[in-house]
Amino acid sequence: MSAPQQNATAQNWFTEQHARSGSSFGLRIKERLHAEQTPYQSIEIYDTTDWGKLMVIDGCTMVSTRDNFLYHEMMSHPVLFTHARAKRVVIIGGGDCGTLREVLRHEEVEHAVQVEIDERVTRLAEQYFPELCESNADPRAELLFIDGIKYMAEQEPESIDVVIVDSTDPVGPAEGLFNADFYASCHRALRPSGILVQQSESPLVHLDLIKSMRTAMRVADFQAVKTLLFPQPLYPTGWWSCTMARKGADLSGFRERGAATKQFATRYYNVDMHKAALALPEFMREAFGE
Amino acid sequence: MSAPQQNATAQNWFTEQHARSGSSFGLRIKERLHAEQTPYQSIEIYDTTDWGKLMVIDGCTMVSTRDNFLYHEMMSHPVLFTHARAKRVVIIGGGDCGTLREVLRHEEVEHAVQVEIDERVTRLAEQYFPELCESNADPRAELLFIDGIKYMAEQEPESIDVVIVDSTDPVGPAEGLFNADFYASCHRALRPSGILVQQSESPLVHLDLIKSMRTAMRVADFQAVKTLLFPQPLYPTGWWSCTMARKGADLSGFRERGAATKQFATRYYNVDMHKAALALPEFMREAFGE
Repeated sequence: MSAPQQNATAQNWFTEQHARSGSSFGLRIKERLHAEQTPYQSIEIYDTTDWGKLMVIDGCTMVSTRDNFLYHEMMSHPVLFTHARAKRVVIIGGGDCGTLREVLRHEEVEHAVQVEIDERVTRLAEQYFPELCESNADPRAELLFIDGIKYMAEQEPESIDVVIVDSTDPVGPAEGLFNADFYASCHRALRPSGILVQQSESPLVHLDLIKSMRTAMRVADFQAVKTLLFPQPLYPTGWWSCTMARKGADLSGFRERGAATKQFATRYYNVDMHKAALALPEFMREAFGE
Repeated sequence: MSAPQQNATAQNWFTEQHARSGSSFGLRIKERLHAEQTPYQSIEIYDTTDWGKLMVIDGCTMVSTRDNFLYHEMMSHPVLFTHARAKRVVIIGGGDCGTLREVLRHEEVEHAVQVEIDERVTRLAEQYFPELCESNADPRAELLFIDGIKYMAEQEPESIDVVIVDSTDPVGPAEGLFNADFYASCHRALRPSGILVQQSESPLVHLDLIKSMRTAMRVADFQAVKTLLFPQPLYPTGWWSCTMARKGADLSGFRERGAATKQFATRYYNVDMHKAALALPEFMREAFGE
């Protein structure tokens, strides 16, 4: 997968040209507010005409004010309503803090650690996406700026209930988050019935990647694996997925009553959308042998 | 809604810049195979690097070889598995013939008329998307190239089981397909328990349009209205919808057993995806007062 080309100036559009899929997505922008090269990646912030703020990492559109609720809700609520009672949650990546905010809406969560390698992502999110960072001062939240792969390898066995891998694409800093070694670390660190969930790219473009992730999760001894689907306009094809893997237990249901009586507001997630996300189209069933 | 801008030459990408949403979608192209101005609209055909052939109408990406199965399956199978036994089906628009092909997979259909105003769409589909046209010679198929609004107004009362409105956006030739007068024609022409289904744009960008369509359908005396969701990368935001309206009956279920034992292959549609398409996110429930 080669790096995307970009075309930020013509007619005031920022466009990510996604080489692997031969498709592009762009947003009309008012101005570029910030650009920097960190030790890990390039980060740009744009003000758009219709999508609020936009964060771009290494030329890829990562987060916009308008549509991030889809991704952040679907990376957190399905897994937390599947687990019986997740007290300790680890987020790998997730530097914009949107997933952390959603996780902390769950009162059963006693401790949520966000392990983001690039502190600048979080500092820029605080500045340009303050609503995503509104729970950063929650006493249950801990923000670490270190390598998530190393962090997971060093955790106490059976100490964590849920691991959420909210990373960039499997190139660059995130590459090591998509293989059996990393999944083995997660498996060891998870308590019995613990769940790993990871963003798993587009079903239409990255089906082979999703299949190899699912295989690697099973190799790492996860007993149950499920891929969930949801829309996400900012990412290639606008159709995205996350994949859950569970240690020593199945993934056949979730706490429907808990989800139906949740004490916090969502814009996308509800019981019906949770069930809908679990449905697989024919071509994915065939690919997964289900 | 102003016409989209286009940028077909730079770096060999065809890009539709969708003014209303401030977002763009593009495909990497090898070459432009055809371009013409018909009495109704401009039509271009491109060969893409990864999406097969691409048809562009008035600057909007309309059909690609790669992803059209999502739209065509979801415009036909949910409505036909909701109706008890649709014998007579009318497709308004749908000139690429992909919806007609899916409709004719249902053996209960005795007659399917495609009413496309612009014959050139179908002639170009026959040339560049022959797989979509493979059922055009079915003896149950009838292809008319006339105004769909006029056609529906002239139909015998209670003569049709299902009307599928597979149109372009509600600007230009398709504008008259999105209002209560047209829905009243459909209502009159439908038999009791007949169903109208219409493509209804993006839930993220066109929510007001969907709401006004739903209201106009009820004004035209349709008793039940439901909006279904599905991915469609080629259309703005990649997240699309269709809206069903039923005459004198509800829309609370569908023929699950029929769908589970269907005698034809699909790539997206199945019983689970039908149910999933019926689920509404929180923000849509609120918008619809459901």
